[in-house]
Amino acid sequence: MVAYDNNNIFAKILRGELPCVKVYENDHVLAFLDIMPRSPGHTLVIPKAAARNIFDILPEDYAHVIRAAQKIAIATKQAFNADGMTVAQYSETAGGQVVFHLHMHVMPRFEGTALLPAASIKEDPKVLEANAAKLIAALKALG
Amino acid sequence: MVAYDNNNIFAKILRGELPCVKVYENDHVLAFLDIMPRSPGHTLVIPKAAARNIFDILPEDYAHVIRAAQKIAIATKQAFNADGMTVAQYSETAGGQVVFHLHMHVMPRFEGTALLPAASIKEDPKVLEANAAKLIAALKALG
Repeated sequence: MVAYDNNNIFAKILRGELPCVKVYENDHVLAFLDIMPRSPGHTLVIPKAAARNIFDILPEDYAHVIRAAQKIAIATKQAFNADGMTVAQYSETAGGQVVFHLHMHVMPRFEGTALLPAASIKEDPKVLEANAAKLIAALKALG
Repeated sequence: MVAYDNNNIFAKILRGELPCVKVYENDHVLAFLDIMPRSPGHTLVIPKAAARNIFDILPEDYAHVIRAAQKIAIATKQAFNADGMTVAQYSETAGGQVVFHLHMHVMPRFEGTALLPAASIKEDPKVLEANAAKLIAALKALG
């Protein structure tokens, strides 16, 4: 098992040392928009607990992540009028992981539109802010 | 919200009307090998409760799915000497879903090897049985 690295960028976001476009937070998780979205509204859900990936996260922390991911998927479908949703979580480099703090991708999907390749285009911050506002409103409406 | 179709093939597997290469079962979930694996050991975890996808599954049922998925990921890494893991769950056709009973894909990953395209090659049943035996042994060793 590889040790958790406290200096990964999501650990820095959790400590407030780096900014993020936050859409949701509770005692256990933080969710924010991916700055290189594979689809509009692409959100990352991370545990507040230190966990590298699926191999070391505590089951109860992973349950909090999936619970929030579902909430965000439902709100995102409404906010962006999505036709479907892809949820994915990558562990270790071979598994597609780039940042070594566990994160669940929640990606709205639209008929006839493939996901962009991972980390291909950096989104305009104004677009991210507008998308976050839509998603936050949809989350509030869900209660 | 689209209604759950009781005649999807995973509902039939749950009712014992169709076979599967089972690797794990508890009161809440069933896990079996994908017959068209995208990587060796590719496993599907499904809730026993009727749920179409992320939009209608009860949060507690989804928590059971992710808990089993993690267990299987850890065992699969050992059984197949995998370098990483990709976990994915597709909702609705636009999201990549083909069978409309919620299923979480647990796919072992190996350095330098991409996943096969979805549903591309039907695996030899003898290979599936041998892989299931390896995975079941690893699950037992984990306790």
